[in-house]
Formats: sequence, structure tokens, C-alpha cells
Amino acid sequence: MIVIMKPNAAPQSVDSVLSYIEKHGLQTHLSRGEEVTIIGIVGDKTKLPTENLVSFKDVDRIVPVTESYKLANKKFHPEPTTVRVGNTHIGPDNLTIMAGPCAVETEEQLMCIARAVKKSGATILRGGAYKPRTSPYSFQGLETVGLRYMQEAGKENGLATICEVVSQEAIEEAVKYVDMIQIGARNMQNFILLKEAGRSGLPVLLKRGLCATIDEWLNAAEYIIAEGNPNVVLCERGIRTYETSTRNTLDLSAVPVLRERTHLPVIADPSHSTGAYKYVPPMAKAAVACGADGLMIEVHNNPACALSDGPQSLTFEKFDRLTSELKPLCDLIGREFTIC
Amino acid sequence: MIVIMKPNAAPQSVDSVLSYIEKHGLQTHLSRGEEVTIIGIVGDKTKLPTENLVSFKDVDRIVPVTESYKLANKKFHPEPTTVRVGNTHIGPDNLTIMAGPCAVETEEQLMCIARAVKKSGATILRGGAYKPRTSPYSFQGLETVGLRYMQEAGKENGLATICEVVSQEAIEEAVKYVDMIQIGARNMQNFILLKEAGRSGLPVLLKRGLCATIDEWLNAAEYIIAEGNPNVVLCERGIRTYETSTRNTLDLSAVPVLRERTHLPVIADPSHSTGAYKYVPPMAKAAVACGADGLMIEVHNNPACALSDGPQSLTFEKFDRLTSELKPLCDLIGREFTIC
Amino acid sequence: MIVIMKPNAAPQSVDSVLSYIEKHGLQTHLSRGEEVTIIGIVGDKTKLPTENLVSFKDVDRIVPVTESYKLANKKFHPEPTTVRVGNTHIGPDNLTIMAGPCAVETEEQLMCIARAVKKSGATILRGGAYKPRTSPYSFQGLETVGLRYMQEAGKENGLATICEVVSQEAIEEAVKYVDMIQIGARNMQNFILLKEAGRSGLPVLLKRGLCATIDEWLNAAEYIIAEGNPNVVLCERGIRTYETSTRNTLDLSAVPVLRERTHLPVIADPSHSTGAYKYVPPMAKAAVACGADGLMIEVHNNPACALSDGPQSLTFEKFDRLTSELKPLCDLIGREFTIC
Amino acid sequence: MIVIMKPNAAPQSVDSVLSYIEKHGLQTHLSRGEEVTIIGIVGDKTKLPTENLVSFKDVDRIVPVTESYKLANKKFHPEPTTVRVGNTHIGPDNLTIMAGPCAVETEEQLMCIARAVKKSGATILRGGAYKPRTSPYSFQGLETVGLRYMQEAGKENGLATICEVVSQEAIEEAVKYVDMIQIGARNMQNFILLKEAGRSGLPVLLKRGLCATIDEWLNAAEYIIAEGNPNVVLCERGIRTYETSTRNTLDLSAVPVLRERTHLPVIADPSHSTGAYKYVPPMAKAAVACGADGLMIEVHNNPACALSDGPQSLTFEKFDRLTSELKPLCDLIGREFTIC
Repeated sequence: MIVIMKPNAAPQSVDSVLSYIEKHGLQTHLSRGEEVTIIGIVGDKTKLPTENLVSFKDVDRIVPVTESYKLANKKFHPEPTTVRVGNTHIGPDNLTIMAGPCAVETEEQLMCIARAVKKSGATILRGGAYKPRTSPYSFQGLETVGLRYMQEAGKENGLATICEVVSQEAIEEAVKYVDMIQIGARNMQNFILLKEAGRSGLPVLLKRGLCATIDEWLNAAEYIIAEGNPNVVLCERGIRTYETSTRNTLDLSAVPVLRERTHLPVIADPSHSTGAYKYVPPMAKAAVACGADGLMIEVHNNPACALSDGPQSLTFEKFDRLTSELKPLCDLIGREFTIC
Repeated sequence: MIVIMKPNAAPQSVDSVLSYIEKHGLQTHLSRGEEVTIIGIVGDKTKLPTENLVSFKDVDRIVPVTESYKLANKKFHPEPTTVRVGNTHIGPDNLTIMAGPCAVETEEQLMCIARAVKKSGATILRGGAYKPRTSPYSFQGLETVGLRYMQEAGKENGLATICEVVSQEAIEEAVKYVDMIQIGARNMQNFILLKEAGRSGLPVLLKRGLCATIDEWLNAAEYIIAEGNPNVVLCERGIRTYETSTRNTLDLSAVPVLRERTHLPVIADPSHSTGAYKYVPPMAKAAVACGADGLMIEVHNNPACALSDGPQSLTFEKFDRLTSELKPLCDLIGREFTIC
Repeated sequence: MIVIMKPNAAPQSVDSVLSYIEKHGLQTHLSRGEEVTIIGIVGDKTKLPTENLVSFKDVDRIVPVTESYKLANKKFHPEPTTVRVGNTHIGPDNLTIMAGPCAVETEEQLMCIARAVKKSGATILRGGAYKPRTSPYSFQGLETVGLRYMQEAGKENGLATICEVVSQEAIEEAVKYVDMIQIGARNMQNFILLKEAGRSGLPVLLKRGLCATIDEWLNAAEYIIAEGNPNVVLCERGIRTYETSTRNTLDLSAVPVLRERTHLPVIADPSHSTGAYKYVPPMAKAAVACGADGLMIEVHNNPACALSDGPQSLTFEKFDRLTSELKPLCDLIGREFTIC
Repeated sequence: MIVIMKPNAAPQSVDSVLSYIEKHGLQTHLSRGEEVTIIGIVGDKTKLPTENLVSFKDVDRIVPVTESYKLANKKFHPEPTTVRVGNTHIGPDNLTIMAGPCAVETEEQLMCIARAVKKSGATILRGGAYKPRTSPYSFQGLETVGLRYMQEAGKENGLATICEVVSQEAIEEAVKYVDMIQIGARNMQNFILLKEAGRSGLPVLLKRGLCATIDEWLNAAEYIIAEGNPNVVLCERGIRTYETSTRNTLDLSAVPVLRERTHLPVIADPSHSTGAYKYVPPMAKAAVACGADGLMIEVHNNPACALSDGPQSLTFEKFDRLTSELKPLCDLIGREFTIC
């Protein structure tokens, strides 16, 4: 932490900052320049509320020098993490494709989709049983019944399964039926839910909040890991910007940025970010090209009739074409990816 | 709902849209122009997933014509709502000031702050007992003990009280001790929490999410009202933009926009939005000038030592100066505001 | 300028940064902490491209400690500037209202509007003769003819005049006819135009760019002042965000932020920022309440027939009602404002 | 254009809209629903300022149904355009790499960089002779001298050349020396400059404005083409968002979106968008994977000493490694790309 004083700060102002810091058992390092005076703080910063130093007279700014996340931080854990999910894993050596409908609708629908995505190379079946919807009057999901369908469709087709959870109750149900839970964008800073996900024992897919910075996102991951659950996978799913041509703006630069900052696997969701099926294949390929460890893609047997997010779902045929184009790309960059 | 077809859409494409809509028991209204063909949909739209029409061949766009929120909508409830909170109320005839520390720290601190803000004209004491913090290693609040201090400080000083809640458990505790609960910006789309707040029986202050549109915000209010709780107050607290000179960008235009769309009271929070105490007084006055029904302001006995958000807190003296400047402004615009 | 090294930076990395800086004739100030090593740079930073230090091995970040604008900076010019424009002035002691049509259309129209706005308290007539339009097929302005109408309407009614300029040719024409020139949002970083405006001799209204930070805006002002023209007035006109309920998001917090950073006058434009006439009066009052030195407001004799920006224009009646409400607000806060 | 009336709009309100439209020689198409009344407008919309209809009583919204750009529009020009630049071309069959320093510094530097980028597969040499800089005190470019160095370095190495222009004078100079001109992000809506670029006769690279929507960008291209110059190439270079981990947010989804809307070639600039050399290779690959026709990449012989944008420049070695990785990717997707 560095305190930058205003130009011509009074000596008493500098002294009062110094004594405040030292009173809390920390050391200071004073640097007087021609233009500005800077005070470095050395020691355990959890001991004092340093942000408040901004209120001190003649203080211009406070500059943090270290990140607040530790367990998710690559600096303290340089090797990339591989997360096991059911009979598969997500990590640097392969490309994981999670595919399925936005919402679980019926048993037959899900079974039929599961069969199709398995055939085209997906290893994890996705499907929403609890749907956070903007309007209270929209379809909100089949809940436990939906989870059960997921379990069956997963078993029958040799696929691992993932479902979004929105509450402690949903987590308690999910652990009985699925292999991985997802924290959605709207809940990325629902810290109660993050802690519960951390205690669930299941691997967690943490989607980026719609206007979360990369550092806030890593701090959210820290909440989960701090509960003793190191199996966190990050999912870039688009951020909110002024541009309305796509539903959100897929921030693919986040992939290499996260590679610098964290050891956790990173995947991308081109379906929710673009909101339009025709943009899914090019953005899926872009995500793989810039280093994503996996993709989450919506696939539906009949997009025009889907109860949720139909416009962005791929048909079986389009999904199959996409994975067959991803295969040589994976070969090229050295990621394992197998189509049955 | 209007479906806009692409230029030169094939007649079969138009037919398949028409028959899909009619199959769901809705009526269509076809309008063929030189450049484009437009299909109006008449009837109860909850019967079909209209958004999926985007997937149909030759469909260019879907344009909604009515809002999805009904109970919060001014069109169906033109008179402004007044919300009772303990011994006071929030509405169009007065200016309500909620003031207090970001986080409840000790009993003495809270009592001392309560006394000061009461003296300067506040009618509701604010104070956080559950703090959603970006990092899991930051101070997270005194929880039930903090709620108890709030109750005592409120009683002793004749102030109504408000606390943020972050979980069902927090709501269950809060109803025992305080007069109003707050859903914070990070939880604005935590739909489970919104429903629980709706069932709590207490009036609810709903802060705008950091990147929530005004319509998403009103839909979040709809979740609360739809559970039978009409006592919702909206709080503009800044949105996230590229500008970093203030912590967030206080979107004061939201105040008159909300006046057009909803009957619910609207207040503004100049403390969290700007993140700097020196910008609080001018933005508080601006909020009142453009029609806000109230203000939420952080006040601290010793900002430099606050455990949370010290830099944006006003001292007692600065808060008193602000309210004494707000008084004649209220007289001018005809809002009741009394300083003891 | 401070260089923050990565944790565990190699001693050679630190040395190579030190020697690079010293080689350019600057002094360094080394501060080794337990976690991080920090290097302060002392001396004239224009001598070395300090941003490139980011490329050095083990460098984590570069933190600037002083602003790049000097002439616009309040630190070096603490007294507020008053800018003379024709027979009036813009500054801390009064409220200046610039009003008129978005685009000059006909001589009669302009004369009629000028008379009306003068009567309601405006002191500067605004009107566009050169219109930057998104589409090349939209109306682009009357150019010199429009400027002449402005001059006549100003003279006839005792109003100073302001016109937007979009090119060197436009500036050359404008100096013959009007009292102040405006650089629009889209040209805020058209540095060639800024320099020409600086050399024009006329006072300049500099609108904030749609996605300009406050510091970029002050640097743009610096371009004008650096050419020897200190008469710059800043105009907040809304920034681009994800919210679409208003055309742009009026960032009123910029007013007090600018008060901290610059001595230049600051006005606000509630017409272009909101894009809707009904939001203009509340936002105009908010701007005055938070300290703006003036307002730019669109007024039209027949908004429904305006050739540009009709939806946001006030009728004469609405404008008159607004200024009559602003009058007591000015009295309250001690700004001179006279309605004839 | 569709006019959506408010629920329960008075019949007189509907009539006054109808008669306004018909008075301008256009036809109307009325559709009365249970909830809303909608008026379609048929005919040449350039005849009336339809946006003003928003001011009419009981009008809720105006919805445009056709784009304002025509010449850049794929609907009227379905085949992809190929743009010739000196001895090479940009289009759907190959991958074009423009590489070079941010700013031209010396003749030797440029010659040395030109030789290196040619060797690694670039076909167009980029280099700034006119630099738009945020601060007036930063290095602003060598101007004509720089253009001359560009010409020589291009000739000597068989490379086409491109330079940014910031004024009419710069364009007049540039046409004498280089093969393509660039309109930078800050000037994307400098309509005067766009028109002059349209009249220059040279192919134009049009960078996206920092907060330009895709439709505003295409309208800017329309300005150039409308002057008779169809040789426009679009360059996505990052948009401004709240995320600060990268300098801007590279919006790669814009590539497939543009493919839907325009026939013009699209390239991406991973250097300026990310602002950090280490993110350039992954984002360059992502851009190619999602369909970009080319890349603009900063390369410098000694990034640490560059006079501008050193941190984002690749060394020769890093650039060579990148193009050797792009080669098999191009082979895979069927784009011609040759490394000498």
C-alpha cells in the first residue's frame, strides 16, 4: 500500500499519516520528492483500514500494491489447476465442451439433447433446473424434477452434469444429482451463496458478473476456495457495455489476463454473451484460439420452441458442424478433444 | 409485441411466423410495407415464448411494446405511493433522510451517531450489520448483535431503522429488530432474496444493481410486490461506467425517468455512488432538486477510523451543514423537512 | 511517477530500471518492502518515455502521481476563471443560460426563438450552423448563412452568440459572426481542431466526449489553452453507458469533480444528455444545485417540426416555466440570474 | 419506421400523427391492438424528420426498421469486397498483416523494422507520422518527414504502406507517399475528415471509435463511400468499458456481426485494444479464428525505448513466433498467408 500526498502537503499532515500507520503496528517508508511525498506501508495490512487514509488531510490517493485474493492467485500457486468433474476433467491439456439446453423442459427433450451432444464431443451436460429470470412472470425452472432428469440423462449417455444453483436449498438438492454446480452471473457477488458453494464439496463453475472486473471475479472465487473447495472453474460470459448488437460483449481478452493472474481453468460461453446462434461458432473458435480450456454452449432440439433462450441455441446439426471444426483447431494447438 | 421481417422475406417465412403465433391462441395483425413486413401480436403473450421468434427464417427483430412489470407500473397505478417506515414515511410530500454509519461497529459508536443524525434532521437510522464485501478477508459485519444495537439506537432517539440483508437468515433476524430492510446493489437480481423480502412483511429499500437497467430494476421490484408486499422504495446508488473519478456514476436522470414509469418512491445515495465525502453535499442537493423523495447518507463520528467506507462518510459537522442547506431547498420546492 | 516491481523481482531487474531512469537524467528513490519494491522517479518526466518501463522485466505497474495538464489545473491556478462572452460572462458569480434551437433553420425561426429565450432570461443564443450528423444523409446545417442569422438575431435581442465548429473553415467563418465557438462531443479529441480553436481568439465551449474521462477532457482543454487562449468553458453533456432510458447518462458528479481539479467554468447540457424534453427541467435544476455555472438548453418554436433533435427541445412556455423556477434556486445559492 | 402509441392513446392523438405523416407525402398503416396502437410509415423517410414524432401527444416510441447506411450495407451489396492496397489486397481469401511501429521515429529504425516484419509475413507497413495524443505535451509525430521514411521503407522492402491522417493537410501529404490512409478511433466521427478521406482516392482504414456502436461505425464508413470511395476497411480496436485490466475491451463479436451487415473487409488491432504485448498473440489468433481478414500489430526494434506505446509492441522475435503460429491456423481455415 502506498500513500501519495498532495503537492505541498503540510509536514503535520505527513506526520499524522505516519503516526496513524505506526500506531497500528506497521512500518512506514517515507519518500520526499520535489513534487510529491510518498509513504510506503510495510507489514500486515489486515491490521488497519488503510482505505480510510484517504480522509486524512493532504492525502491525494492510496495505491494498493498487492491483490486481495491469495488462494486463487497465480503468484502463490504457479501451476495450472485441473478440476475433476464426474468422469471427466477441465484443465490445460484438453478442451471441455459443456452443452445442453438453457432450461430443462421434459425428460424426453433432455435425453434426446444429451444423446446428440455426446455424439458431437461434449463431455458435460448442461441444463437449467433453477432459472434466474428478469421478470417474475417468466418460466423459473423444473427444480428437483429437472435435476433428476439431468442425472438420468447424464448416466445414460456417460456425461458429467452441471446445473446452476440460486439458493442454499438448490445446492442441497443439486449435490444429490449432479457433478458440478454453477453460480450464475447475477449471483457472482451473492457472497452467502459463494460460501455455501464452497462448502458443498462439488466443483463450481463461477460465471463472471455482468459488470464485474476481473479482480472482483477472482475475489468471488476466493470466497469459494476459502471455504476449502479448490475446484473452481471461471466462465467468461460477456460483460455489459453500450453496444447492443450482441446481448453482451464477450470479453475474450479476459482469457489471457486470467492466465497471468490465476491458476484456475477458464472457459467461455459464446451463447449467452452473443445472444444469437449465428455468432456462436465464430466466437467459440476465437475462445479456443486465445486459450480457453473449454466452452459452454446451448444446444436445443427445437430452438424455436425452447422455453428459454431459444434464439441463441444451436440445433444438433449446427453444433455438430462446430465441434467438427473445433477438432482440427485443438489438434493444432495441442489440446485433446475427441468426437466419439 | 411486433415481429419485423427482413426485407424480401419469403411468403412462406411470413406464413410460418403467423401460424406459430396463431397456434398458441394469439391473434396476428399483418402489415406489408414496400420495404418491410411487420406482424403485430395481439393477446396474452405469456402463452408463447415470443423471443424465440428470432430464430425463425427471415425474421429480423422482435420489438416488445409493453413492459413486463405490472404492479410497479405507473400505467396501472398512477398515484404516487407513500411507504410507512416505523414512525415516519417516504413519499412525495416530504424529504426523508436515512443516515448513519456504513457498518455498525460498537454500541457507543452507533448511539453517538444516531443522536447526531437525529439532531440534524434524519428520520431513519441506517447501519450495516451484514456487509457484502468484495474480499472474503474484509470485515463482514456484527450480524444479530449489530441489529440489536440498531434497535436500541433507534428507540432511544425516536428514529426508524434500516439494515441491509443478504440472506434468508438475515431477513429472519432483521424482522425482529428493524423497521425496513435493504436489498443491496449486488443482490438486486438475487431473485430468491427478493421473494423472501417480499414475504417478510417489512418495507424494502431496493438499491439499483451496478449495471442494472431501469427496467431490470423495476422488474426486481415486481418480484417483491408480487409476493404481496407493495412497500418498495427504489434507491439510485450509481452505475458502473468507464469513469473512475468517482467510485460509480450517480445516474440522477433515473429519478425523473422513474417518475414516468413507476408510482414507487425514489431516493438517492450520494455516498456510495461518489465514494468521496466532498462530493456528497453537491450531489445530495442535486438529487433533491431533480425530485428525489429522500437521501441515504453515510455519517461517521470518526471517518478516518471507520471499519468500512470511511472515505465517503460525512462528519457530524459536515452532515449538519448539509441538512441546514437542504432545508431552504425543501421549502422552495414544497417538500416537508424538519430539523429538530 | 512510481514504478512498482513484482514480488520477488530479481535484483538485476531493479538495477536495470534504475539505470534506465538515471541514464535519462532523472533521480530515483528506492524503497524495498517485504512484499514489494517501489522506485520513485524524481525530476522532469518529459525527458523519458516512462510508460515503456512496463516492458521491463519484473515491473508490475507504473503509477503516475501528477496530472499531465498544467494550465487547466487548479493546483497551479487556484482562483476560478470568469470567461467573457460578448456582452456577458460565465463564472462563479452568476448563472448563464445558453438557449436556442439545435440547428438554425430560417431567419424568422431564429429571430422568434431569440426573442423568446431573451425574455425568459437567457444571455447567450445557441444555434447550430454546422451539424455533425451520424448519417451522411441527414441535414448538415446552413453554414455561413446560419452564422449570419445568428449574428443578426443576437444583435437584435442583445444576446451573445455561440455556434459549433467542425473544421478550420468553420472557425474562420465563425470568428466573423459569433461571440463564442463550441467544440462538440465528437470532436473533443480532434486535436487539430482544438489547436485551431486555441488560435481563434474566441472563447471556446468544450463539450465532453461521449466516452471521455474527466482527465482526457482537461487534457483537451489544455490543447486550447496551450495555444494562448485561456477562455475555455467545459460542458458536461452526458456520457455513453449501457442505460438506454435516456440518450446518454448525464454525469453530474463531474461538476464537483471538476471544481476540485480545474479553475475553468463548468456548465451542463440537460437537452442532449437526456434526449427527452420532459427530463430537461429536473436535470437543469439538479445541475444548478450541484454547482454548475450555466446551462445549455434547446428551445424551439415548434419542436415537432424541428429539423434536428426535436424530441428534446423545450417549447417557449416550458422554457419560461423552467427559468422562473431556476430564479429562486439561484437566489438561494447566491448566483446572480435575472429574467427581464 | 413504426410509431408505437401509448396504451389508451386518444383518437385525436392518433389522428394528428397520421395527418403529420401523410402531409409529408408518406403513407401510413394503422394497426389497433387491444393494448397498443401501432402506425407503420411507408415511403421515402428522408422527406420528414420522423424522430420528432416522439414529441407528439400519446406517442410512446419510434422504432426504425431499416438502417441509415446503404452503400456499406450487405443487403444491397451481398458479395464481400476486396480492397487493393499498393501491391497487395485485403479481402476474404487471404490474411493481411499490417505491422510496424506506433510512431515513425528515425529512418534507420523504420527500415530495420520494415525488413523484420516483411520477413515474418507482413504485407503492409504501418507507422504513425501524425500522432493524436491525449496530452499536448506528448510527442506528436514527424509529419512529412515520417511519411517519406514510410515510402522509402515500403519500396525497399516490397511492402505497401499505411499512415494515420488527422487533418486535410495530412491527407494531402499522405497521398504523395503512402498506399492507404487510416482514420483513427478519435476521429471516427470527424465527419469533415471522413469526407476528405472519401475524396482522397486512397483506400481508407477506418478504426472504430472508442464508444461507437457498430451502426455508427458503418454510418461513418458510409460518409467515405458516399464521396465515391468504396475502398474502406474496418478495424476493430477495442471499446471503452469499465474493465481496466486491458486498455480497452477488444470486441471480437463485432467481426461476425459486421459480416452480417456489411460487405467491407474487417481487421482487428490486438495491440491498441489490449495495451500489453503479452496479450497480443492470443488475441491475434482469436481474431483470425472468428473471421477477421487481417491484423494490425505494433512491432518495435526496442519496445522499452519506443517514443509511443512501447508496452504493447512486440519484439521481432515475438512477432515472428506469432506469424509462424498463425500460418497453420490460416491453412486450416483456408486463408492464404505466406511467410517469405
